[in-house]
Order: sequence, then C-alpha cells, then structure tokens
Amino acid sequence: MSFIEVNPDCHFPIENLPYGVFSTLDNHKHRIGVAIGDKILDLSVVKHLFSGPELHSNQHVFDEPTLNTFMGLGKAAWKEARSSLQHMLSVNESILRDNAQLRARAFVPQDKAIMHLPAQIGDYTDFYSSKNHAFNVGCMFRGPENALMPNWTHLPVGYHGRASSVVVSGTGIRRPYGQTRPDESKPPVFGPCKLFDFELEMAFLTGPGNKLGEPISIDKAEDHIFGMVLMNDWSARDIQKWEYVPLGPFLGKNLGTTISPWVVTMEALKPFTVPNTQQDPKPLPYLYHEDPYNFDIHLEVAINCDGLSKPATVTRSNFKFMYWTMKQQLTHHTITGCNINPGDLMASGTISGEVRLLTYHTVTVCNINPGDLMAPGTISGEVRLLITHHTITGCNINTGDLMASGTISGEVRLLITHHTITGCNINPGDLMASGTISGEVRLLITHHTVTGCNMNPGVLMASGTIRGETPDAYGSMLELCWKGTKTVDLGNGETRKFLKDDDEVIITGYCEKNGVRVGFGTCTGKVLPALELS
Amino acid sequence: MSFIEVNPDCHFPIENLPYGVFSTLDNHKHRIGVAIGDKILDLSVVKHLFSGPELHSNQHVFDEPTLNTFMGLGKAAWKEARSSLQHMLSVNESILRDNAQLRARAFVPQDKAIMHLPAQIGDYTDFYSSKNHAFNVGCMFRGPENALMPNWTHLPVGYHGRASSVVVSGTGIRRPYGQTRPDESKPPVFGPCKLFDFELEMAFLTGPGNKLGEPISIDKAEDHIFGMVLMNDWSARDIQKWEYVPLGPFLGKNLGTTISPWVVTMEALKPFTVPNTQQDPKPLPYLYHEDPYNFDIHLEVAINCDGLSKPATVTRSNFKFMYWTMKQQLTHHTITGCNINPGDLMASGTISGEVRLLTYHTVTVCNINPGDLMAPGTISGEVRLLITHHTITGCNINTGDLMASGTISGEVRLLITHHTITGCNINPGDLMASGTISGEVRLLITHHTVTGCNMNPGVLMASGTIRGETPDAYGSMLELCWKGTKTVDLGNGETRKFLKDDDEVIITGYCEKNGVRVGFGTCTGKVLPALELS
Repeated sequence: MSFIEVNPDCHFPIENLPYGVFSTLDNHKHRIGVAIGDKILDLSVVKHLFSGPELHSNQHVFDEPTLNTFMGLGKAAWKEARSSLQHMLSVNESILRDNAQLRARAFVPQDKAIMHLPAQIGDYTDFYSSKNHAFNVGCMFRGPENALMPNWTHLPVGYHGRASSVVVSGTGIRRPYGQTRPDESKPPVFGPCKLFDFELEMAFLTGPGNKLGEPISIDKAEDHIFGMVLMNDWSARDIQKWEYVPLGPFLGKNLGTTISPWVVTMEALKPFTVPNTQQDPKPLPYLYHEDPYNFDIHLEVAINCDGLSKPATVTRSNFKFMYWTMKQQLTHHTITGCNINPGDLMASGTISGEVRLLTYHTVTVCNINPGDLMAPGTISGEVRLLITHHTITGCNINTGDLMASGTISGEVRLLITHHTITGCNINPGDLMASGTISGEVRLLITHHTVTGCNMNPGVLMASGTIRGETPDAYGSMLELCWKGTKTVDLGNGETRKFLKDDDEVIITGYCEKNGVRVGFGTCTGKVLPALELS
Repeated sequence: MSFIEVNPDCHFPIENLPYGVFSTLDNHKHRIGVAIGDKILDLSVVKHLFSGPELHSNQHVFDEPTLNTFMGLGKAAWKEARSSLQHMLSVNESILRDNAQLRARAFVPQDKAIMHLPAQIGDYTDFYSSKNHAFNVGCMFRGPENALMPNWTHLPVGYHGRASSVVVSGTGIRRPYGQTRPDESKPPVFGPCKLFDFELEMAFLTGPGNKLGEPISIDKAEDHIFGMVLMNDWSARDIQKWEYVPLGPFLGKNLGTTISPWVVTMEALKPFTVPNTQQDPKPLPYLYHEDPYNFDIHLEVAINCDGLSKPATVTRSNFKFMYWTMKQQLTHHTITGCNINPGDLMASGTISGEVRLLTYHTVTVCNINPGDLMAPGTISGEVRLLITHHTITGCNINTGDLMASGTISGEVRLLITHHTITGCNINPGDLMASGTISGEVRLLITHHTVTGCNMNPGVLMASGTIRGETPDAYGSMLELCWKGTKTVDLGNGETRKFLKDDDEVIITGYCEKNGVRVGFGTCTGKVLPALELS
C-alpha cells in the first residue's frame, strides 16, 4: 500500500508503477515519471533515492527526456528500480512521505501533466498475431480459402511499420488522403479516405539491443522486453486495399499510430500470466518455449461522438488470445540477425477476441441450460453457438436466416456464410433442436471453427469473453461491420460502419486479480477532418 | 578547380563535394567531412568559414556527429554551403590554400578515415520503382500474369524497411538464419539462408520534415530531398519467399542494408538531369510533374572472391531507368500525412536496366546491321531483340532454345517463356530470318514488352545500356541467375547463382558529362559465414 491514495478502480496502484514521460505548463522539460493513483512521481526529482547496486551509478537515466537509456540498462536495473519505487512509495516508508518539501516537488497531478511519447522509437514493427483477426481480414480480402496464409501458423507474420508517425494518446489523427480504387473496372481515384478504421492492439517496448548479425534466442528474449502499452493502429482500409499487394501495408498505416503514455512493465504484469495459446503445428525449435508468457489483459474499445451521452463500447477483447507470444515475436524478428535497440516498438497486430469452446456432453441434441455451459450472465444475452448437423433436428436453416421457434423465447440468428462452414454441413431441411434453449441465441459460425479448429458434434461456442452489451470481440471496424455489410449501433441513433470525422476512439486495458487492478490507462485519438489541400 | 589535386577518374572533384561522417584513429569523434580528391575536408575544423546569411548563425551544424541538423536546414542553406565550400576549396582562394596550419588540421586522407553512417536514419523506406525489376521478380514469384500488380503503374509501390539494420559501406554482413520452405509438400525448415543476394539500389536522404497530417505536395517535394547514396539491399530470397505473403518483405530484408558513406547532393547531380521515364497511364494530379527529375547515373556491381584476380562486374545499369521519380516517391509517401524527418532514407528498389526500344523500319524481315539500330559498340556484343512472328521466317523456336543459324556467326539464344509473349506469337515451326544479322544475337523477350509496352512487328530491342563484357543489366543475382536456372560466370572458373560466403559485393556509381565525373565512390560489403548458433 502506498501513502498516496489510490481508488479501487484506479489503474495505477503500487503494484503497477508504469513509466511515462511528461512535462508541465510551468516546466517544459520532458521528464520521466511513474504513475501512482492520480499522481505522477517525477523521477528526475527523486533520482537520488535510487541507491541500489544497479542504479546508484546510473541515476542519470532518470534525468533523460525518454526511457530509452533506462530501458537499455536491462532486467536487473528494472527490478531494482521497481523495488526502490515500491519502497519509497510505501505507506510505511518515511523518506518521501514525511518530507513535505520533497513531496511537493516530486508529485504532479496527472491532470496537470502533458504526456509525451515514452521513448524515442527507433523502429516500429507490427505483428499479426491474432488468429481470429488474421482470418477475418484474410477472408474479406482474399476469401476464406486463402485467408490464413500457409506461413501463418509457422511463424509470427509481421511487417516493418513507420516509426515517425507513432504518436502519444490524445493526438488528433487527420483523415488521410490517398489513392483508392473503389471500382475495379475503372482507374483509381484520389481523395480523402472513406473507410477509416481503428485497430485494437498492444505493443511492447524493447530493452537492451543486440548486435547486427547476432540473433536473440528464445530463452533470452524475455530479458529484452521492458513493458507494454495500448495501441491504436489507425488504418485507411480503402487505401490499404489498393496498395498492399505485393509489398504489404504502407500508406494505409503510416498516417498515425497512437500508443498509451504509460508503459506497464513486464514485472507488473507477471501476476496476470496465463497459459500460452496452444500452437499447432508445434513451432520450430528456435521459436519454441514452454513457459507461459501470455497475459490476461482485458481490453475495450469505445467510440465517442457528439450525439452520445457516453462513449459506446464497441469491442471487448483480451490480449490473451494472441497466438504468438512476445518472446516468439522478438526471437523471430532477430533470427536473421536484425538488430533491435532500446525503445523499439513491437505491436501485436489487431487483437480480435476468440470465442471460447466448451464441449457439451450431449452430442445428439443441442441441450443448453442457462449457466451450464456459459459464464453466468451471458446466457441471458447472446450466445454464440456452433450447430453441427448432428444437433439439428427441427428447423430449416439458410444462410442469414433469423429463426424463432417454439420453445426459443428469443430470436435465433444464424449468421452463416457458405464459405465458413467447412467441417459442419448445414442444409436446408436440417433441423435444430431448441427445446431447452431459453433466451436469445445468436448463431455465429466463427471463422475460428473453419480453419484449424476441430469441431465435434455438440461442441458449443459459448460467449465467455463477450459480456454485457457488446455482441462482438472484433478489434476493428472492418470486422465489426464485416467489411461494410453490418451496421454498428452506438446508441442514441448513432450508427457506424467506419469512423466519421470527430469520432474519438478510446482504448482501455487492465489486468485484475485478487482485487488488484493493474491498468494501462487509456489510449485515445480523435479523427480530424481531412485537410483542405491547396 | 581546387587547390587539392583531383585525378581525372576520381569521383570527388570540386563539382561534387559530397558529405559524409568520419572519424580517425587519433580522434574518435564523429565529424562531418566533405570529400575532395583523395582527401576529406573536416567541416568541424573550418565551420567558422561558413559566413553566409543562412549559415553564419548555424555553424554548429558542422560540429555534429551526423548530417541530420544540417539537412534539416533546407535548400537555401545547402546551396550556400556548397558555394562556400567551392569558394574555400578553389585554387584561386587563399583562405585555406595558404594557411598551412589550418590546412594541416582541416584535411584528412580518405584512406586514414573510418567512415560512419552519414545520418541517424529515423525511418527507412524501400520503393520498388524499377519496372524491369518489379516485373522480373513478379514473374518468378507469381508468374507473368500477376507479375506487375494493377497498382504498380498508378503509384510508387513501397514498404517500410528496418532502419536499425542500415549500415555503412564496408560492414560485413552475416549470412542469416531463418525459416524457409524449399519443398512445399513438406513443413518449413530452419537453417542458414541458401539464396543470399544483393540488390543494386540507390537511396535519397531527406531534408526538412513535415508535420504529421500535412502532406508534401509534388511541387515542394524537391525542397525535401537532400542527396543520394548507393545502396545494397541484401536479401535472403528463400526466407523472403516463405514469409512475404501477405504483409510484404520482413526478415528477408532486415539482416542488413548497406549504404555508401558519401552523400552526393542534388545540387551536384543537377547537371546530369535527364528526361523522366514516360509514364503511362498519366499519374493522378497529386503525383504528376513535368519537370525532369531523373538522373543519368552509371551503376555497376562487381563481385570479388578469393579465386579472382580482380572483381568481376556482373551488372551494369543506370539510375535513369527508374519509372517513378524521387519527387513522386516522396509526395506519395506523405500524401496520407505521414511525417518525414531529416535523415530518413528512401530507396529506389532494385535498379534493373532497361532494354531500349528502337523501331526498325523493315517490318517483315528482321534486318539488323551493325551500327544501324544500336549504339555503336553494342552490336558486337549481345543484342536483345524482340522477334515478332512477322520476323520469323526460318527456324523453329522453343522456350529456352539456343539457336545458331547460317549467317549468324554467333549464337542466338532465345529466352522466351510462353507466358511472356502476349503480343507476339512464336510457335514451333515459325522461322526467323537471320540473313543479315552478324554477331551474336541474344533474343530476350523482356517483360517490359509484355505488360504495357506496345510492340509492333519489326520493333527491335537493342542493348543500348548493356555494354562491354556484361550480358545483363539485372540488379540482383535472383535476376542474373533467373531464379537459379542460369549460372553467372565470374571468370577464373568461379561461377555463382547466389552469393557465397566471403563474396564481397562492390557497387559503384558515377555521373559523367563534359569531362566532369561526379561519383558516389563505392558501397561494399562482404558476406560473412553464418554464425554458429549455440
């Protein structure tokens, strides 16, 4: 516990202590700070208190305008810094608590601070490590047959991004101009982007670098990962679509990438470690590790605009759905000898939520009782459910059908594209038992079930990760509106397919366990109207 | 003329004055220098001599360890610096010439200097602006039908590269490890790259930046281009092939990118301006400019290895074959609002030479006389020649055939893939008149002729740009060995398909006109054996 008061729902208790860079109106110098409650501890003021063996001769790192040098010191220094900070902020420690003069200089209210990029980002890499997202987008652009490229399950696919256009949360993002080809029978056209999108991502900042030509092995990778931020990888979908073959995303992505100002350290995230996603096929030895390096981080995206009384949550997802771990990403990145430097940014790719699979033991009749198969609370809402033909015993299902039947009190919507059903034949005339299903049931054949995931009769896809009012865990408007075929309801009559001018996108993320919440704060950005070109 | 002696074949006369960053054994400080003859003028020593209106209050830019701040000053400062340098180095100016003490401090022999990267490269972008190269590689990886993507002639295709792995000429490049899939019926494998390649490129360094969200218009683009360097974009072809779909090149390219140490300014290149490549279709207005911004820069690639008495030239090409100008590249790059900073590196993509098209007036018989259709000197070498079926009157041609016929004293090699012949049917049994052709004629259906270029009966493609002993103007081994189907002869029994360990790749480039040679020096790198992985 800290002598600084921390609200229970605050993201920044003493268990967190994320690093950031800030300035104030009366002191324009960029300084390193640590968030605690609603305050910032200015490390340039208390640097003399870092007196451990790693830091006593490196106190200057806290006097720099970015975290790069500190991050370059490595894990022992990071651990010592965390322990020194927890000590000096402790309710039982007097050194700061009882020194009114030092306290007055050392603490700055967060709402009086201007936040800056936490690091000078030398290079920025964007991975593509959410299987759901990769499949969804692949489907839309290349069809389900080629959605996941053959390499996807063998290596963490990624590409180099544009470091210069990475900005800190709160920076307005202008709707870009660009070349698009909306009608493939006509020449391309020029104008403002029409399909402007967010991408829910997280990213890590690297610590000590490696020399060119000397890869970082998987068992050393952890030593080079400092901490994580939230990220919005703004995307111009129409520009991207026209430009990206064969060399990948370029201008559709370099118009701005927003990261949250607070870097949550891997040390702070450790208690929220969860098992890695099972990988099939087993990765090649250079990429293989058994120890868990996956994190249970709740993620939400909300959109705010003038018509709304409060931001509308459009996405609820979780970092733990990543297929490839950050250790695998880093090791793969350097395997050719590519050198990293402290402060490189490596992003996850859009994090689209996964629908959890639960096996149901009654295989011939789809027999769902509230509370049986899904997390309590979700059964009264929408339930994603895979119907195998074995479970279908009473009702004709066609693509896109809405069904309400006898004992189903709500509506059942089958969202089935004929492409997505590979392991599961649903034919007109097949029947679905609905006897025991109460509430509204929406059937969504997720793409997850199509490529690798083995579906057995009676397997149910419950909506464990999709709670409350949001129907989807998709990490982008592209997916939420399914390439423009669906409308996303924000409430108050506001609907979206892609982002409109003046929309503010707000990403939040936090871990929670045993009453401790370790959070990332927010990552926000507002869409500014396209510039008037002279 | 300078008071510093400059050999006639030296790349660095007073008309050039390229900037670089160097240190010496007795002074490890990185300083900015200018190459003149075989010497370097140390600008940190003579910075007080820059007394014009732009620079007198900015002399500190010459005391920095990189060119970034100087490049950020802009065109007026660059012009003034050039004029001050030409003045102080002039044979008629005493200020340096007659100050023995200052001269002793100000000049460093190039062979005593250690060259460094000229700039801190914030971001590095690689374009793909050689139509020949794009087509050649596209053919190999996707087949001729999809070789040039529909977007290629509408916008300068490019991708973000890895800035951290850009190194200065002379740095050894280690053969990388990586994941490849040599046999598509089997899982991928891990090991050292087997298809290691160079790519002949040039790149420009940017001057003043723009703000995020504010594009640089085509008429302002020139103000943001400082100068050019030679570049070798080392490529691991086998790694690239397996990883690059759908997000583009990643690890196949980030193992190292070598640039030459001397930055030749656009001002120095101005006298070597040549017309832009004709662009069809006409670019959209935001990309369109009429003023020439193309440069006649001779380029050569040589390979040196233990078995050779001297480096073997494998490529002769020219920068002027670029389809997209650097102004178009820069404008396109920023059109979405992407911000550039001083010292960003933007590369051309592999520069593969073009075979010049000459119309031959006898349309029914292929009637080539030495000197008639080709530049003098080239007829005695190999001639690339498009045979239309009109010109074929006596000889059976199959894909890959080698033909020697009656009056052709040399051999005629027809390198024809059945895919590449769209306007021109060559069928077995068609005949080629060879009566009047003397010398060796190699028939190569270039891909250039396939996609956009309208070929009429009797059109000849002469080898204007391919002179002397080199048969090809291809800018990479991938093309020279045509994906492993041909062998490249280095002499002395040394042959290559791809690069071997300890091969040194030497790129040189220069402009020449009216007896003045303005050159780039060399860009070299040696392939180091793959590291022993622990």
